[in-house]
Amino acid sequence: MARYSELSRQELETLRTELTERYEQFKRRGLKLDMSRGKPSSDQLDLANGLFDVVNSKTSCLSADGTDCRNYGDFTGIPDCKVIFCEMLGVAPEELFICGNSSLTMMYDAIGKMVLHGVRPGAEPWWKTPERKFLCPVPGYDRHFAITQRYNFEMIPVEMDENGPDMDVVERLAASDPTIKGIWCVPKYSNPNGVTYSDETVRRLARMKTAASDFMIMWDNAYAVHDLHPEERQQILNILEECKAAGDPDRVMMFASTSKISHAGAGVAAFACSTAVMENMKNLLTIQTISFDKVNMLRHARYFKNLDGVLAHMEKLAAELRPKFQTVLDAFNNELAGKGIAEWIEPKGGYFISLNVLDGCAKKVVQMCKDAGVVLTSAGATYPYGKDPRDRNIRVAPSYPTISELRQAVELLCLCVELAGVEKLLEQ
Amino acid sequence: MARYSELSRQELETLRTELTERYEQFKRRGLKLDMSRGKPSSDQLDLANGLFDVVNSKTSCLSADGTDCRNYGDFTGIPDCKVIFCEMLGVAPEELFICGNSSLTMMYDAIGKMVLHGVRPGAEPWWKTPERKFLCPVPGYDRHFAITQRYNFEMIPVEMDENGPDMDVVERLAASDPTIKGIWCVPKYSNPNGVTYSDETVRRLARMKTAASDFMIMWDNAYAVHDLHPEERQQILNILEECKAAGDPDRVMMFASTSKISHAGAGVAAFACSTAVMENMKNLLTIQTISFDKVNMLRHARYFKNLDGVLAHMEKLAAELRPKFQTVLDAFNNELAGKGIAEWIEPKGGYFISLNVLDGCAKKVVQMCKDAGVVLTSAGATYPYGKDPRDRNIRVAPSYPTISELRQAVELLCLCVELAGVEKLLEQ
Repeated sequence: MARYSELSRQELETLRTELTERYEQFKRRGLKLDMSRGKPSSDQLDLANGLFDVVNSKTSCLSADGTDCRNYGDFTGIPDCKVIFCEMLGVAPEELFICGNSSLTMMYDAIGKMVLHGVRPGAEPWWKTPERKFLCPVPGYDRHFAITQRYNFEMIPVEMDENGPDMDVVERLAASDPTIKGIWCVPKYSNPNGVTYSDETVRRLARMKTAASDFMIMWDNAYAVHDLHPEERQQILNILEECKAAGDPDRVMMFASTSKISHAGAGVAAFACSTAVMENMKNLLTIQTISFDKVNMLRHARYFKNLDGVLAHMEKLAAELRPKFQTVLDAFNNELAGKGIAEWIEPKGGYFISLNVLDGCAKKVVQMCKDAGVVLTSAGATYPYGKDPRDRNIRVAPSYPTISELRQAVELLCLCVELAGVEKLLEQ
Repeated sequence: MARYSELSRQELETLRTELTERYEQFKRRGLKLDMSRGKPSSDQLDLANGLFDVVNSKTSCLSADGTDCRNYGDFTGIPDCKVIFCEMLGVAPEELFICGNSSLTMMYDAIGKMVLHGVRPGAEPWWKTPERKFLCPVPGYDRHFAITQRYNFEMIPVEMDENGPDMDVVERLAASDPTIKGIWCVPKYSNPNGVTYSDETVRRLARMKTAASDFMIMWDNAYAVHDLHPEERQQILNILEECKAAGDPDRVMMFASTSKISHAGAGVAAFACSTAVMENMKNLLTIQTISFDKVNMLRHARYFKNLDGVLAHMEKLAAELRPKFQTVLDAFNNELAGKGIAEWIEPKGGYFISLNVLDGCAKKVVQMCKDAGVVLTSAGATYPYGKDPRDRNIRVAPSYPTISELRQAVELLCLCVELAGVEKLLEQ
């Protein structure tokens, strides 16, 4: 297949006519499909329903340390559930805190605490730095950006490559500007492009000079165990250990949750950090809660037992997800490869496929899909302020639809990418 | 029994010798009992264990509107669970938001949102008022005071009487000082003295002139259905309705939870407010979470069904609690009544009995109890900054111990109250 940029004007016009006809046919199909969010499918959720049975009116509700999970107590989480997250994140129990069902809530809360009170030992509250900024690797997770936007940070995008954020840029900015207070990271199978940070990237993040003494790496390890191909599992370095080795253990807060392990709406979330930061976090958290839902922690502890239990479960989930990812990738390979109008990375895990179309075409493609009944994540959502400067990135979330729905949706998507690409080339 | 203040010095000295001897005997018993918090007993918790069985791997997980509770969605809570809280608080579904397991967390979060962003329509964020203040009816709930202290409010105590906070004082302060931003209220069976706000009090709170246009009543209806004597159930006026009638619907946020209905560590919490405030709260909450734990909402919805279901359950809990409250009150009546050294109110519901001892004696009594193995809530905890200006209030939490433990604990408490009282009279 020739690259479209090498086609003659006449060839492009013929192509446009064909593609437009196919698109109009699509519109008449009356599709109605929402692929805007990374939602697990019912089949995936069913795989964890055994959770509901391990705590019932006949079982005990005592945690490993004898705490009645139905009552107040065990403020930092029950030890049996800590086992899972400690293994997952590579931290000690005293470096871990288990919370409610949402790690996003804890990130919002943690940044709020940094703004209002400061959580690193000796840190000033960030409200005293009205011109504060945050580094945002792009493309990235819209809900991270929404948090820093809400807290009035100026967000500075930093391009991602196949090793993580461009560390030359990160290092230069962090070293030069004390109002840059931190960075968002999804270090493994990142949202949306599936990139896993290289060891070099992790080490540089841990070791880099920061002009702000209270710089904080927000390490959202959302896809810590979300390998699509367990035999090719990607590993990341333990950033807390790297920060300790670099002499700045207080530089990072790690987050994880079971939202995409057990149940998206009813899982368990946790954060981890140095014991010094943990001490401050505990002193602040004790103001706002007596304890989080320990019965749900107990369900997860009894059902998964440990990291091996989680990994075994993740293989079942991967078996559900793999054919969906493959459906999307097959369509991209069949319909878009070699035409010079789109690029993508084949992710080895996570929840998304990130598609880059020709500059200036993403919004148009998403709108065309919507007009034909398929709602994708808004174009621009993967950039701070919803503004993709090249208007080219589209996040595809293959988990929720059935394979047959997905096949139609991605056929439509490829068609729109082609049509928008051809129209753009014709305009030039 | 003569009032101790009328006894001769010699009589008091004889009494002191007797009481000291009894106290030393108590110390030798080696009691070990923590009555510091209002924790439900295991027997109470057992009564709600049916919750665990209404969602299991064989049941559906769909809410009344067809949402899969295991997945993302139904951001404001599932409609079947809203039924319960809407009936309990007397609000419409669009005035209600169901959250995680802790109403305290939501209060902390709501005040945080008022400080950082403002939640009343048009309100300026309170960080712009560095000298901000909050009204704190006393005695009150230590965790409320901890929140406003954490957010740097100057806390102004307002004395409670049998109708609620002294409304003459509240009205005068609220009308005169625009830096007074709100008031904490536990309107029914208040923590700790069990007072239920009179209709007059509720109406005056709704109607009073406030110098701050963004004044907020934090209405923690923690004991909305916690009647010890269902046949003498106390009712409070619906403050949201009163605020609407008074033309200021945005003046109040109501909070409730099932922490002391179902399970203290694994219940469901909710807040309610005008639709205008709700709109702002939702816009802020959507930054921090995709949805709260809906499976737990579903458990509560299926188990209790509606307010009648909750009330029937509360009668069972009351049957557990009544003899415990009675044990404490019997001891007070038998050991302390008529001696002029202590006062208390017999609460008709809630979780606490508030005991006022002679001025300057509360800390001493609590310390003496502790030295003999019974930990009570710290003296002063029921006042802002932990400072009871008269050092006389002690909060008794009868729910957790067994009756036999409670009998010993309260015998010790009465003994310490007498001994401290006698010693005080001897000092004069």
